[in-house]
Amino acid sequence: MRATEQAEPAPRRRRGRPGHDQSAILRAAVELFNRRGYDATSMGDLAKELGLTKPAIYYHVTSKEQLLGQALDDALDELTSVVTEASTERAGVTAYQRLREVVRRSVEVLVAHQQSVTLLLRVRGNSEVELAALSRRRWLDDRLAALVADAVAEGSLRDDVPPALVSRLLFGMVNSLVEWYRAEGAYDQAMVADAITTIAFDGLARHES
Amino acid sequence: MRATEQAEPAPRRRRGRPGHDQSAILRAAVELFNRRGYDATSMGDLAKELGLTKPAIYYHVTSKEQLLGQALDDALDELTSVVTEASTERAGVTAYQRLREVVRRSVEVLVAHQQSVTLLLRVRGNSEVELAALSRRRWLDDRLAALVADAVAEGSLRDDVPPALVSRLLFGMVNSLVEWYRAEGAYDQAMVADAITTIAFDGLARHES
Repeated sequence: MRATEQAEPAPRRRRGRPGHDQSAILRAAVELFNRRGYDATSMGDLAKELGLTKPAIYYHVTSKEQLLGQALDDALDELTSVVTEASTERAGVTAYQRLREVVRRSVEVLVAHQQSVTLLLRVRGNSEVELAALSRRRWLDDRLAALVADAVAEGSLRDDVPPALVSRLLFGMVNSLVEWYRAEGAYDQAMVADAITTIAFDGLARHES
Repeated sequence: MRATEQAEPAPRRRRGRPGHDQSAILRAAVELFNRRGYDATSMGDLAKELGLTKPAIYYHVTSKEQLLGQALDDALDELTSVVTEASTERAGVTAYQRLREVVRRSVEVLVAHQQSVTLLLRVRGNSEVELAALSRRRWLDDRLAALVADAVAEGSLRDDVPPALVSRLLFGMVNSLVEWYRAEGAYDQAMVADAITTIAFDGLARHES
């Protein structure tokens, strides 16, 4: 990299970079898929939304399904990373602590990747790409249910609700964020994470009576 | 009604009734809208799904949007009835009791009207019909937030999470049902209702420490 380039303002330098247009196309595509539905959105609609020609878009992406796959992988990679770490036993860290942590970090992922997670949560399995995403979602659900079961087994969580059902409802509450959370709204990410962990765990934690 | 008709077996009598085909068309339409997306579903797709001609469908319904409106009204009428009753003050019944009741009865509505509620929860506001449904949903959300605020004010619920946020998360957990609940699955409706009220209210109820 030349010294003169380093001195240039970042926004201007970025504009011509390979990859920049592709990520802008992906962002616009995901937003459009969520707004209109994936099946109802054509590459022509996407071109129009971006003020580009169809050939200009096809220069960067091969198909609408490629965009869908990239968006779903984006969401799934983040969630998989969070769940994998929470599922890994560590000395001195209880399953209960790891479950609280995965709830908090899931909120962070949902807020940071709201559009791609929204798309992921609406996938019905209508294509190979969607079926692959559903399979990865099931893996996440299974790991989370196992973590809840571990927390029950260690005596941290109440044992009168089936762990798989607890997991469904707990992450149902977390996932509901994508439907109503607005970054510019009344609640910041930390407040939402606190509210969910408070509501969920004061309910789930065993209270001595 | 003639006495001879009364003696006929019910399923056979029903078949020719006006209204029967219309409700079968509505059911199939809602299921198809949820599976493929509303915008991506044509009246031709619906005809094919039902093994009917398009004119046969148009004999019963005027448009795809009419079917959407009917399905959304179906879900909204049920939820409005439940929320209206829960919002009505009654002697000797606390806001806390009415809130627990509205959670339980919402679970019943979601299970009984799962397809139309699923459709309702995915509405984005892309037409007059959808905007009207969103407006009715907002009314429900406002009533529920007010009920949570009443329960906080009477001292039954914790006051360290904003009532509107509690309401979002509580009904986010309830609404998540439509994504995974299967009547033939491991959990019956009563078990799910118990799990939600247990998780939510043991968290929300003020614990003396």
